[in-house]
Amino acid sequence: MSKKDNPVVQEIRTISQRIFDEIVALRQPEMTSPLRSLSNVSYDEKAGYFETTGKMKTRTMTASTVKSFAQSLLMMNESKKLVETDDIATKREMYYISKNWGEARFHEQPESDSVMDDIEAMVGMNREQLGFIPEEKGGDVAGKLVVIDKDSDTGKEIRIDCTKFGSGAYSVPSSVEELQFETKADFILAIETAGMFQRLVKHNFWKKKNCILISLGGVPTRSCRRFIRKLSDDAKIPVYAFTDGDPYGWLNIYRTLKVGSGNAAHINKFFCVPSAKFFGVTADDITHYKLPTHPLKDVDIKRVKDGMKNDPFVIHYKPWQKALTDLVKMKKRAEQQALAKYGLNFVISDYLPQKLEDPKTWLP
Amino acid sequence: MSKKDNPVVQEIRTISQRIFDEIVALRQPEMTSPLRSLSNVSYDEKAGYFETTGKMKTRTMTASTVKSFAQSLLMMNESKKLVETDDIATKREMYYISKNWGEARFHEQPESDSVMDDIEAMVGMNREQLGFIPEEKGGDVAGKLVVIDKDSDTGKEIRIDCTKFGSGAYSVPSSVEELQFETKADFILAIETAGMFQRLVKHNFWKKKNCILISLGGVPTRSCRRFIRKLSDDAKIPVYAFTDGDPYGWLNIYRTLKVGSGNAAHINKFFCVPSAKFFGVTADDITHYKLPTHPLKDVDIKRVKDGMKNDPFVIHYKPWQKALTDLVKMKKRAEQQALAKYGLNFVISDYLPQKLEDPKTWLP
Repeated sequence: MSKKDNPVVQEIRTISQRIFDEIVALRQPEMTSPLRSLSNVSYDEKAGYFETTGKMKTRTMTASTVKSFAQSLLMMNESKKLVETDDIATKREMYYISKNWGEARFHEQPESDSVMDDIEAMVGMNREQLGFIPEEKGGDVAGKLVVIDKDSDTGKEIRIDCTKFGSGAYSVPSSVEELQFETKADFILAIETAGMFQRLVKHNFWKKKNCILISLGGVPTRSCRRFIRKLSDDAKIPVYAFTDGDPYGWLNIYRTLKVGSGNAAHINKFFCVPSAKFFGVTADDITHYKLPTHPLKDVDIKRVKDGMKNDPFVIHYKPWQKALTDLVKMKKRAEQQALAKYGLNFVISDYLPQKLEDPKTWLP
Repeated sequence: MSKKDNPVVQEIRTISQRIFDEIVALRQPEMTSPLRSLSNVSYDEKAGYFETTGKMKTRTMTASTVKSFAQSLLMMNESKKLVETDDIATKREMYYISKNWGEARFHEQPESDSVMDDIEAMVGMNREQLGFIPEEKGGDVAGKLVVIDKDSDTGKEIRIDCTKFGSGAYSVPSSVEELQFETKADFILAIETAGMFQRLVKHNFWKKKNCILISLGGVPTRSCRRFIRKLSDDAKIPVYAFTDGDPYGWLNIYRTLKVGSGNAAHINKFFCVPSAKFFGVTADDITHYKLPTHPLKDVDIKRVKDGMKNDPFVIHYKPWQKALTDLVKMKKRAEQQALAKYGLNFVISDYLPQKLEDPKTWLP
């Protein structure tokens, strides 16, 4: 594909041409993008992710908006250059580039981030497609997967076999748009902590159960979520999530992985993993396995209350409402590592195999 | 090497035998380990890292110490089992294992962490050698390096070529004790931010300058520091650090990488990288390159004052005292990304090549 035919370049040309035409016709040019806010989000199980309810905001060029108008156009120009030269820029770098824009330069990064979010929503693509990458990296991967990348100098295909890294792993890059996959794995296991991931890698769990292990490292980054999404789409295999048994693991980590987040609804369709299922640790696991627990913190209880009231995902799923209610009743939370009470490798010999065999113990 | 001949197992046997003999002889058994505190640290440029000044603490078994005594022995037993079975446990998992120790169980993880630190100091090995791994993972690696690991099932050698990861990277495992290296690289470049690392990987900087790129991801983890240390020892190549131009980048990230930290002095000899040099961003760079800056924060100024007064590393090196003083005078700090003012790839085309050619611009 020639860089000129790239859909990003085409879309930026279309928007710019329209603005140019309006100016030539002596009309006030406008830019329109979806309203980005938590209250403008709905959840539909069939779509599988948080969607904007369609409210739009329009910015008309006037004396007071001329600077932000100019900034949007200048940033779109940077995006076009990045895509055309096959380069990348972090959000932070984009902010510094603006230092050459004279009066239109940004004074603080939040200003430039906000313009970037608007452009992302207006163009209808995620910002990695626009050439802007996150500061933070993605997750770690081990197991039955070949990632196909290309050498950025020669364009030659590079095949990365994730069974060949010993105790180490493949580290997902900041942008995964160009990656392709080959796998005969049966499922993807997405794991909250690096420690648990390391245990499963050390004992070649991916070989025993023919799967792909991915370390989320807490709330997964954009590139980690996008990687899992692209992989599960391509390979058509299920994604099982394994986090701590607490509101943070359930609502911040798992819910973000599965349906996305509220304040970035315009890009959830690229980043959600609608097919994900929750393996554990569930509230029932805490009881069933008599796990060592910690008291629920005030912040946990607040998170549950907020979720029950405001989170369209929780409101949609009765089993999650029950799990959250059970946890608050118990006043307890349990970590993945709590399974070590029965021996370090109980998680490999018993817990995960039992989960795989019994979908009734999962949550949606 | 048979597991029985492992130095960890031997050392644990020696300590246990001595305690056993004391008990049989009806003497009160004792355990001795170096005092772990900031005030018990010195810096010697020849040694290259923070060392304890030799003050020891001795714990005698009495009615009031019997529980912590038992905990130390039980944890040493776990360590012995881990090493003998070639397994690993995170600090968190170790805490949960204690839930089966009846009255000797830990009630909070800080208790078990503290016992682990004592054992580490007493045995004189780092806790990864004892089988205990950190929760967090190490850094990311790309470039002219082959890492040699082994398959944990078959023991067969695995060769990991870090030039073959495309836009991704090799992710360093939580424990690097068993790894070996093959490299003809000229140097290691240790980079503060994932974003800058991604840029250098994207543009194959390691190919242009025949080097190894390592992403620190902020203050480097233990396994990342140990990886760089082992690699620089093995390959006998210099390590250059590239961080933001601020007290956090200098004193928290670089100083920890080079000489270790104050509160873990008993293991600095394993984790420091004495040969590391500081590339930038220096205070002189901010002036020389007219970099966009941010105001120095109160916390930055406090960090400088603390460092000038209490940090044996700063007290040892005049150039660092000057750099810190200059920064406070300017009241400014600059990030690695600020170089993007001159174009995204100025760092590749100009900044890093100029640094490589001119050691006078480095700091010790």
